[in-house]
Amino acid sequence: MAEPAFQDQGSVHHCHGCGAANEKGLRLKSYWDGGEAIATWRAQPHHCGGTKENLNGGIIASLIDCHSLNLAIAHSYRLEARPIASAPRIGYVTANLHISYLKPTPLKETIHLRARIAKLEGRKAWVDCALSAGGVICAQGEVLGVRVEWD
Amino acid sequence: MAEPAFQDQGSVHHCHGCGAANEKGLRLKSYWDGGEAIATWRAQPHHCGGTKENLNGGIIASLIDCHSLNLAIAHSYRLEARPIASAPRIGYVTANLHISYLKPTPLKETIHLRARIAKLEGRKAWVDCALSAGGVICAQGEVLGVRVEWD
Repeated sequence: MAEPAFQDQGSVHHCHGCGAANEKGLRLKSYWDGGEAIATWRAQPHHCGGTKENLNGGIIASLIDCHSLNLAIAHSYRLEARPIASAPRIGYVTANLHISYLKPTPLKETIHLRARIAKLEGRKAWVDCALSAGGVICAQGEVLGVRVEWD
Repeated sequence: MAEPAFQDQGSVHHCHGCGAANEKGLRLKSYWDGGEAIATWRAQPHHCGGTKENLNGGIIASLIDCHSLNLAIAHSYRLEARPIASAPRIGYVTANLHISYLKPTPLKETIHLRARIAKLEGRKAWVDCALSAGGVICAQGEVLGVRVEWD
């Protein structure tokens, strides 16, 4: 992990889930692992779901959404052999998010995320993302992102 | 809205999205409107997405998830003609969450949620939920919840 996280290279700034500039956000950090993206994250007690022992489903959705779109952004820059955040800026917005909650996610374990590009077609990127804790996959996400550009 | 919110009747206590006892959570409040459930919610600036003007997609997922499962809980108690939070306690856990993001959701507008039971089958409840702002539906969710009980 010698290279800074995608977010610390400026992929996203303000987002509640992963913006490095959002002091009250979740501040997820995503990194390359070959052609896939990985991240680790630790919850705070108030990120619980219906019980204090398990991670909230909405937080799980946030982590999967942000990690997946950050991979789409980084992948697009890589395809164009440009540094993340170089102009014209590439972003992705979520069109569809589908999460399968397979098992309760223990709040006190380190959360691991792994995302891979499933398909690219025009401006659309389909990303698969697994969220695991304690070596067990607890949730699986499929995210459809749509590319946007600006200067 | 003479009746307290489902959450204030004890439907859920600790949840980051809607637990009344979670001081750092989103504290969504859901109410009956006939056979459907409604809620309104206001974001804070740090709940933004990729831009400061729009609501984060993960927060949207949280609101839809919590509102939908609270309807499933309240509906189950109503079918049994029992007050919410009476023993044996009824809860719902999310098995599947599918969100379609139709338009950007403006951060400064009041968020409105409306959920209805689409189907009930054994322990499973399928709930449809629309999230709107400024009179426009910005996201649509489909949530599959599975009933759990405890004393």
